[in-house]
Amino acid sequence: MKFKEVYFATTNLHKFKEAEKIFSKYGLNLKHLNFKTAEIQSENLEEIAKNSLNQVLSQHKIPVFVEDAGLFIKVLNGFPGPYSSYVFKTIGLKGILNLLGKTRNREAFFLSVIAFGSPSGEQKIFTGKVLGKITFKIRGLGGFGFDPIFQPKNHKKTFGQMNVEEKNRFSHRAKAVKKLVKWLLFKEKL
Amino acid sequence: MKFKEVYFATTNLHKFKEAEKIFSKYGLNLKHLNFKTAEIQSENLEEIAKNSLNQVLSQHKIPVFVEDAGLFIKVLNGFPGPYSSYVFKTIGLKGILNLLGKTRNREAFFLSVIAFGSPSGEQKIFTGKVLGKITFKIRGLGGFGFDPIFQPKNHKKTFGQMNVEEKNRFSHRAKAVKKLVKWLLFKEKL
Repeated sequence: MKFKEVYFATTNLHKFKEAEKIFSKYGLNLKHLNFKTAEIQSENLEEIAKNSLNQVLSQHKIPVFVEDAGLFIKVLNGFPGPYSSYVFKTIGLKGILNLLGKTRNREAFFLSVIAFGSPSGEQKIFTGKVLGKITFKIRGLGGFGFDPIFQPKNHKKTFGQMNVEEKNRFSHRAKAVKKLVKWLLFKEKL
Repeated sequence: MKFKEVYFATTNLHKFKEAEKIFSKYGLNLKHLNFKTAEIQSENLEEIAKNSLNQVLSQHKIPVFVEDAGLFIKVLNGFPGPYSSYVFKTIGLKGILNLLGKTRNREAFFLSVIAFGSPSGEQKIFTGKVLGKITFKIRGLGGFGFDPIFQPKNHKKTFGQMNVEEKNRFSHRAKAVKKLVKWLLFKEKL
């Protein structure tokens, strides 16, 4: 790897553990930076992630990435989108199920955006997306956030019914992290 | 007034018109600055308003204020709160009504926070709050945002059924603007 060590700046330990498992699978060590950024209000996750990254880099001269993710529900015009964390804390899983009621169109996707930067000034964006649908009931206790009501396409379990290894096989965040890892490894070989 | 002119930085013309009417009632002239700030994600309106104000002041050396408001619904743990504008755009009035269903506890309040600043560096916060409840149906076409489902305490009409003059008699925003106006006028007499 080009960098001796890479940090993941997040206050969400679930996210850190998911990413750490992927790094370690590729023989890389991931460090945790417990850093709370002032996320901007935007409907664009990339914009939010870039802004957060620059806040981290202004205080820490290290190779580091931030990640922002959201659940986008088609029939709700993308709600809760970038505000998924706040919406989860206030109206929760039941709130989303109430909003959808018996609606048949339950299409949704999870999107993850990683913004990586290093003290030398280079910055890269990596994204991961997973299509699926919102279930009619809460299923599972695993994961975090909206995982127990999100069933990825072509799978029978919700994210909430999967352990970290299963979720990491195709989750939005895993996709983005894998792209980052490959980029980090590829750069080393140059 | 201490200042020759005061600007209201907002992209929301409804808000500007409401504030302008109050300024003019006190014989003051309010100017409009069409400025889009990058609002931070926070559950604290004052923090959001101060941050936005500093963005404006970094580019405009004028006496100016910004305003941020939110609808806080008790049984939804304060949702939609600081994200009222995004929630309105996505799930709308019907989304809020669906979330509440037939719930009897429909207590809510609107909170408005004004952050005023001038090039000399002085900054002041003014707030206004109005208690009320969420109606069972959409009523009225006036106002904007969640006005047609918010009925202020001790009133029979929703904000959506009032014209600007009526709403300005006791709305959250009017309360905050009046505090600002009084402060501006009081300062002049010193």
